[in-house]
Amino acid sequence: MDDKKIAGERAAELIRDGMIVGLGTGSTVYYTMKRISQMLENGLKIKAVSTSSSTTTIAQKLGIPLVDLNDVGKIDITIDGADEVDSSLNGIKGGGGALLYEKLVAISSEKVIWVVDSSKIVNQLGEFPLPVEVIPFAYNHILTKFKDMNLNPRLRINNGDFFITDSQHYIIDLYINKIEYPYELEKTLNSIPGVVEHGLFINIVDTVIIGKDNSLEIVNR
Amino acid sequence: MDDKKIAGERAAELIRDGMIVGLGTGSTVYYTMKRISQMLENGLKIKAVSTSSSTTTIAQKLGIPLVDLNDVGKIDITIDGADEVDSSLNGIKGGGGALLYEKLVAISSEKVIWVVDSSKIVNQLGEFPLPVEVIPFAYNHILTKFKDMNLNPRLRINNGDFFITDSQHYIIDLYINKIEYPYELEKTLNSIPGVVEHGLFINIVDTVIIGKDNSLEIVNR
Repeated sequence: MDDKKIAGERAAELIRDGMIVGLGTGSTVYYTMKRISQMLENGLKIKAVSTSSSTTTIAQKLGIPLVDLNDVGKIDITIDGADEVDSSLNGIKGGGGALLYEKLVAISSEKVIWVVDSSKIVNQLGEFPLPVEVIPFAYNHILTKFKDMNLNPRLRINNGDFFITDSQHYIIDLYINKIEYPYELEKTLNSIPGVVEHGLFINIVDTVIIGKDNSLEIVNR
Repeated sequence: MDDKKIAGERAAELIRDGMIVGLGTGSTVYYTMKRISQMLENGLKIKAVSTSSSTTTIAQKLGIPLVDLNDVGKIDITIDGADEVDSSLNGIKGGGGALLYEKLVAISSEKVIWVVDSSKIVNQLGEFPLPVEVIPFAYNHILTKFKDMNLNPRLRINNGDFFITDSQHYIIDLYINKIEYPYELEKTLNSIPGVVEHGLFINIVDTVIIGKDNSLEIVNR
């Protein structure tokens, strides 16, 4: 828990007055947001873009001023968590189901920072199930396609019902275990009609801030 | 108008008892549906999958029994219109904004038939603006990206407001005029986060039924 806190808080130090800040989703970014809230009390002026309804709720409680992604040009810096990160700084995101907006905010950002505890660092991506956001109209056919591709798909269920994203789509989690060729998998997933987006984040992050044994490791691309 | 009617009605003759039939969207498929309605009165038994809210409304009025795409395996035959078709039987669809469900139904079908009048036949795709369905959360950034790519994008407006698809997305129409490399363009569009789907239908249709000068031309892939 402390490792998430020190990583999350450290990222907030990268924020400068006047910046537009992308706010990711999850338990580590929560500490970034708490720190930003303190900095705002001390006079910092920023605007933030939220990546999920849950982050929007927290930002509003903490008094962080929000703007819509469509109403800003480039975002200066985005701080987000990740579910897995490998040594090439590629990762898997979407355990919380916010991968679509998280990716849209990340690719609109000058700088993308991930904050994680050391349990998220892996040699090879894929032990964490890869989330794929899909169009509900055809989810069953997409499930069948993933089964035929031996991707071990499971439709995500939440409290006995289909999990629904902020964009009103479903999530299919792929239990691949070892993703040998992330670039090829990305291309394949992008080419499947009904796939809105997936949780492979390749060549997107610039810096990963890792909390480990109550200290910090910072890795740049 | 007669050319649409003879093409649309001719396609209905390909339907056999017990089939699951995909129903496209638009003014030519309307004649297919009217013909199916007569065939149902004469004892034909089929189930149909609709590709849009407008087709659903018409099918219900005409007494065509509908099932959800997720509740069927393969569709036996899908009959749909198109906005442009070239000599390789690739096309542009989505003038009516139903391209996402139309593509999902088409790729779930054993056979895909397009019904068009001869005005839709072109030497090169692209004079008809290419519709791209996008995530509203980031539409402005996607517009900027398309502008930077010289794709001449325009956000589709309907009655003074943003056009909204059946899946609650927006449409950006690309006024490309001449699509020199449709395969490359498809790959590029697929790789852009926030692009849900696009109206390029490549290697999807099996047969095009063309109404021309009150007669028919049938072209197979």
